[in-house]
Amino acid sequence: MVHQQQFEVSTRGRGTTDITAQVAEIIRAAGIRQGLCHVFCHHTSASLILCENADPRVRVDLETFMSRVVPDGDPAYIHDDEGPDDMPAHVRTVLTQSGLSIPVDGGRDLLGTWQGIYLWEHRTHPHRRRITVTVMGE
Amino acid sequence: MVHQQQFEVSTRGRGTTDITAQVAEIIRAAGIRQGLCHVFCHHTSASLILCENADPRVRVDLETFMSRVVPDGDPAYIHDDEGPDDMPAHVRTVLTQSGLSIPVDGGRDLLGTWQGIYLWEHRTHPHRRRITVTVMGE
Amino acid sequence: MVHQQQFEVSTRGRGTTDITAQVAEIIRAAGIRQGLCHVFCHHTSASLILCENADPRVRVDLETFMSRVVPDGDPAYIHDDEGPDDMPAHVRTVLTQSGLSIPVDGGRDLLGTWQGIYLWEHRTHPHRRRITVTVMGE
Repeated sequence: MVHQQQFEVSTRGRGTTDITAQVAEIIRAAGIRQGLCHVFCHHTSASLILCENADPRVRVDLETFMSRVVPDGDPAYIHDDEGPDDMPAHVRTVLTQSGLSIPVDGGRDLLGTWQGIYLWEHRTHPHRRRITVTVMGE
Repeated sequence: MVHQQQFEVSTRGRGTTDITAQVAEIIRAAGIRQGLCHVFCHHTSASLILCENADPRVRVDLETFMSRVVPDGDPAYIHDDEGPDDMPAHVRTVLTQSGLSIPVDGGRDLLGTWQGIYLWEHRTHPHRRRITVTVMGE
Repeated sequence: MVHQQQFEVSTRGRGTTDITAQVAEIIRAAGIRQGLCHVFCHHTSASLILCENADPRVRVDLETFMSRVVPDGDPAYIHDDEGPDDMPAHVRTVLTQSGLSIPVDGGRDLLGTWQGIYLWEHRTHPHRRRITVTVMGE
């Protein structure tokens, strides 16, 4: 059995958006008891992470980390048509995930207690980001 | 067909544990000839990697790399309730994988000759880590 | 339904090779309408990325980024039997992906407009790299 559904997220520019509830709702709608749920982001300047869901400062610190390792306006980059955050957004995407798979049992995701699913917008301006969720199993 | 099984790993603090044999055993038990095997770590301060399995110095050097790029006690972080290794453990998890999928054929994993599956504990103290393996196919 | 196929890529040393067309062709051959396509690289010194497919300078800049964060000949590494690019190739692999899953619908991949699938060779010398594609669904 396969169940596939898409949704969009309007981001407010760089930062994370919790999409755990939307994914959980699609798993419920799928009517699949056991298997896998795959979440996919169709973009090269936004990505997905599984991250601590209790303290929002964790995601502030992740931003601090990335801003240091992959700073905007890096003069070493030659691809900068869309501005100082263009190439850094591609690097951040490659260092994280475009797709995540999560085990499903009892008709729901088996995320750990402290795991949440986040869309990470890497561009400084707001964007609409498309997500496809595929649930497979029996 | 879906086969799902969990196991736990007791880590001795920061470092890697080879879980290739446990995963291979679950694939055998699944009785699935061809498909995919998904390995999932239910935590945000421990992660999974596929890594060279012949020379343990590779995993020593990976630790050296991470200690430099994501050092403990970084004063830039504001999430440090559980100590100097708290936030670095979350960053290391995001830079590696919470889930890995491996092709299955002939009833066994198709890992390359030099690929092993490792749980990477990022906290300095020992922890019990939960792993779920889902095998799907026919 | 499961469809699994392998192919090889002859790399010219460090750099990226676009394998999007080969993967798309295997999805067509699979005859699977909806599900997931998994691409796997059987090596620990070459990896896979989903990356911007319009401007080749993006991949030049990715190389620039990695050369700075994971430089060859780093004296901190103790695993250097195969030369100055040996351990950096393992680190680059761990920071990117050995496997990628992509949603399938209408019998074809649902990659975003700007997403391409690239094999990233991390060794400086040419290698033959083995890729397994597994398509599952209905």
